Amino acid sequence: MDPSASELKQRLAEAGQSHLLLFWDELSPEERSGLTLDLQGMDFQELNGFFKKAVELSRSCKDEKIDSRMEPVPQEVLGSVTRDKESLKCWEQTGLECISQGKVAVLLLAGGQGTRLGVSYPKGMYDVGLPSRKTLFQIQAERLLKLQWLAEEKHRRKCFIPWYIMTSGRTMESTQDFFSRHNYFGLDKDNVVFFQQGMLPAMDFHGKIILESKCKLSMAPDGNGGLYRALGKHGILEDMGRRGIDFIHVYCVDNILVKVADPAFVGFCVQKNADCGAKVVEKSNPTEAVGVVCRVNGHYQVVEYSEITLATAQKRSADGRLMFNAGNVANHFFSFSFLKDVVEKYEPQLQHHVAQKKVPFVDAKGELITPDKPNGIKMEKFVFDIFHFAKTFVVYEVLREDEFSPLKNADRQDGKDTPTTARHALMSLHHRWVLNAGGHFIDGNGTRVPAIPRCGAAGGVADDGNRTLKDGTDLPIKCEISPLVSYGGEGIEVLVKEREFHPTLIIDESGVHQLVKNGLEDEEEGKVLFGQL
Amino acid sequence: MDPSASELKQRLAEAGQSHLLLFWDELSPEERSGLTLDLQGMDFQELNGFFKKAVELSRSCKDEKIDSRMEPVPQEVLGSVTRDKESLKCWEQTGLECISQGKVAVLLLAGGQGTRLGVSYPKGMYDVGLPSRKTLFQIQAERLLKLQWLAEEKHRRKCFIPWYIMTSGRTMESTQDFFSRHNYFGLDKDNVVFFQQGMLPAMDFHGKIILESKCKLSMAPDGNGGLYRALGKHGILEDMGRRGIDFIHVYCVDNILVKVADPAFVGFCVQKNADCGAKVVEKSNPTEAVGVVCRVNGHYQVVEYSEITLATAQKRSADGRLMFNAGNVANHFFSFSFLKDVVEKYEPQLQHHVAQKKVPFVDAKGELITPDKPNGIKMEKFVFDIFHFAKTFVVYEVLREDEFSPLKNADRQDGKDTPTTARHALMSLHHRWVLNAGGHFIDGNGTRVPAIPRCGAAGGVADDGNRTLKDGTDLPIKCEISPLVSYGGEGIEVLVKEREFHPTLIIDESGVHQLVKNGLEDEEEGKVLFGQL
Repeated sequence: MDPSASELKQRLAEAGQSHLLLFWDELSPEERSGLTLDLQGMDFQELNGFFKKAVELSRSCKDEKIDSRMEPVPQEVLGSVTRDKESLKCWEQTGLECISQGKVAVLLLAGGQGTRLGVSYPKGMYDVGLPSRKTLFQIQAERLLKLQWLAEEKHRRKCFIPWYIMTSGRTMESTQDFFSRHNYFGLDKDNVVFFQQGMLPAMDFHGKIILESKCKLSMAPDGNGGLYRALGKHGILEDMGRRGIDFIHVYCVDNILVKVADPAFVGFCVQKNADCGAKVVEKSNPTEAVGVVCRVNGHYQVVEYSEITLATAQKRSADGRLMFNAGNVANHFFSFSFLKDVVEKYEPQLQHHVAQKKVPFVDAKGELITPDKPNGIKMEKFVFDIFHFAKTFVVYEVLREDEFSPLKNADRQDGKDTPTTARHALMSLHHRWVLNAGGHFIDGNGTRVPAIPRCGAAGGVADDGNRTLKDGTDLPIKCEISPLVSYGGEGIEVLVKEREFHPTLIIDESGVHQLVKNGLEDEEEGKVLFGQL
Repeated sequence: MDPSASELKQRLAEAGQSHLLLFWDELSPEERSGLTLDLQGMDFQELNGFFKKAVELSRSCKDEKIDSRMEPVPQEVLGSVTRDKESLKCWEQTGLECISQGKVAVLLLAGGQGTRLGVSYPKGMYDVGLPSRKTLFQIQAERLLKLQWLAEEKHRRKCFIPWYIMTSGRTMESTQDFFSRHNYFGLDKDNVVFFQQGMLPAMDFHGKIILESKCKLSMAPDGNGGLYRALGKHGILEDMGRRGIDFIHVYCVDNILVKVADPAFVGFCVQKNADCGAKVVEKSNPTEAVGVVCRVNGHYQVVEYSEITLATAQKRSADGRLMFNAGNVANHFFSFSFLKDVVEKYEPQLQHHVAQKKVPFVDAKGELITPDKPNGIKMEKFVFDIFHFAKTFVVYEVLREDEFSPLKNADRQDGKDTPTTARHALMSLHHRWVLNAGGHFIDGNGTRVPAIPRCGAAGGVADDGNRTLKDGTDLPIKCEISPLVSYGGEGIEVLVKEREFHPTLIIDESGVHQLVKNGLEDEEEGKVLFGQL
């Protein structure tokens, strides 16, 4: 062993992690240098500290129930698209003005791989089967482009919305390749900035780092709250500072309906002088598995659904709604100065959360074991962990059917958050845009299809006269409007008002198209272009 | 042709239905007498009148949009389980007292066959796969039994809740057999009364009755609103009168959570002196396919989702909720005197609704044709058509997750209202009963399972720290409590308080059982009885 190796050995011994070299003698020279490189970049004392604190945090959470200290979001910090209709336009104008001044950036959390979705590439590259076959990345890119155009048009100055994309070690290369191959979907390459979130090793319940092979540690991304450390490490804050960014919209890649840089949300937060804001949707069923934004000991935070008792989840206000109903949808607003404080001052104070996992490992004989119950932990920070540092925190309530449909799982029976539900949610939204702009849909017989189509038999009446309560996104009219044509439903009257369309209706930058011949999604689709208006 | 046959021929000619005898010469003697029997029982002039009026009604609905005349349910007629908590106990006591006095009957609409469900027997005979394997009929019967016991216990007198079950020609025999084979599930046979709803022939768009074979008309039940005619025809009203029934709860067979003869609902309606009441759940998504209870021209009615425009469906009150949010769940209250008036006076005024259908038919050559688009209509009345005759109408809002989960469709991907969703809804409710009574669930490691279990990995944390909004009925803890033990969650503290249970937990009249070994529904279930407390 050379001097640096013996120094490493020493460091490992001091940190109680010597077992990582257990198979050293069996390794090839290449394997040795690979392992050495991995280990040399690690601060084992820091890791042990993380582990100790994370386990403490996890224990204290179990011991003291958070319920008694939870308070709902007070009315005065709450904005709502349904209750504050008269303010909406004004918020939107403020947001659009900030965008036109180049003060707004978006920050995309895209570190996750599509594991639960059943694919090996980044989720943003997923195509949910829309008529256009656009991927999540393309949809988001085009929304940004359109928003830039809207701001430019209104304020007569060229502007950009820089797009910061956090990937993980696993997704960095494929994500960059994908953007490059697609010419950044029309965006200016210089305004798309990729950076990488950190990784942490998985540890067993005693704090020993787990080997996934004789020469390789089991590593995983450090949670979407790894964002803050990564922003500092990769100079992203400086980049934002150079560009004069004042406001940042943070969101997750998997929400097909996400309004990137949503001017109304940004404008609301700016007008309220907020340093931090969260977009929420109403939680209406007590046992919905969603974290809720609330106050605990006077500070804002997201309380996980797994942390609260049923009694708390069931609590209702006088108006009959759930008391804790501000469902977190991972859409946040930060002022630049707050984000700077977070990165420079607060981040180190954050403790990791512990997630018990089944982590494949090599045993003492060097054999790979795939455990059938949890044998280790991953340590993660969450993006919302820094809410409680905010001085002025606001909450902005939007409609789930308009803004939230995440892609989590592969299609399966009774599947939630699948490619099918995402596709339906988008088409249902665009269907409503057309109706609200005065357009109509007609079926094969030329009859107008009701605004709320019936599952399986558009416009018919159920056999038993008894109406079921169905999710409105079930079997929607097929309709897709390119973000390049409309960001949020605006500007399509001129294309659809008082016109009748056969679905599939596609409106894109080349015009209005109707594909024969069906209206409902599960019938076979004709591929002939029917007409172009 | 004998005299009666020539008279029939004459009647058919006068009614423009002579084509029904088109194949007469080809029929065997048996076929001829069968057809003659069917035709002799029919009033063709009346049928033609139904057709004419139904088509007119359907046209007028298309011409004048109902939207402008719709008004929401006013607060003063509205009761709510979430907003009127202080009144709930009192309503329940009133209802229970009425039950103890033998004044309450239930009326089950069970005419539908499980066609969409993919079975050929009545829906009530369906077993959704609960641990107990109970059918919908058994669950409802046991709720009635338990309610009788509760009323008897409280008021110290023997009482019965007569159960009137409306079947159709297609389901009568199998339904009666099923009850008989199961010894009426413990109910007194004399208090279970079956009767049959009427049938009407399908007609083509010109009002000609459709032949489904050379010797057989295409017949279908006349809608759940056929109830009123059937009540008169089969002497059910008289039977109710003899028994001294004052209040009737009407409901559909397919709702696994139905609170039959719900004392709180009955008590609310009685206290409000209502002649008619509707139980509703909040519609929260504008495009949910559910009819809404509202006022039109000052009278109450259910407006179908297919009848309203998106603009109306989207309207919101100042509190941000949908203005038309009283979702109909086919749970109605009638006073006996109102029901009597309906049957004797109002029913004949009702017009049939038209449902366009693909009706298999024999063509002029006698060949059976299965059309690929609608070629005819069914005529139906709906049970709620008589709302507008009510003098004092009330609306009672309950929680969907507690009271409404209909069984409509076979299990399939993204299925709504399937055996799986019904089973999960019931087990999720019973899980909440146990938690609310102070019980706890623990997993295989002895760790308490959070009140809101995470899909797929109880209590874990999602990989990306981003919480999804999941339906709370998704993969519930397996838990089933027999209606014979608890009607609505009452009385189980003594069995569960401060105890810890391994799911599957079953509480029935023989005690508390735990089946090893899993908590979540999709894992394999051990069949060994684990322990009996």
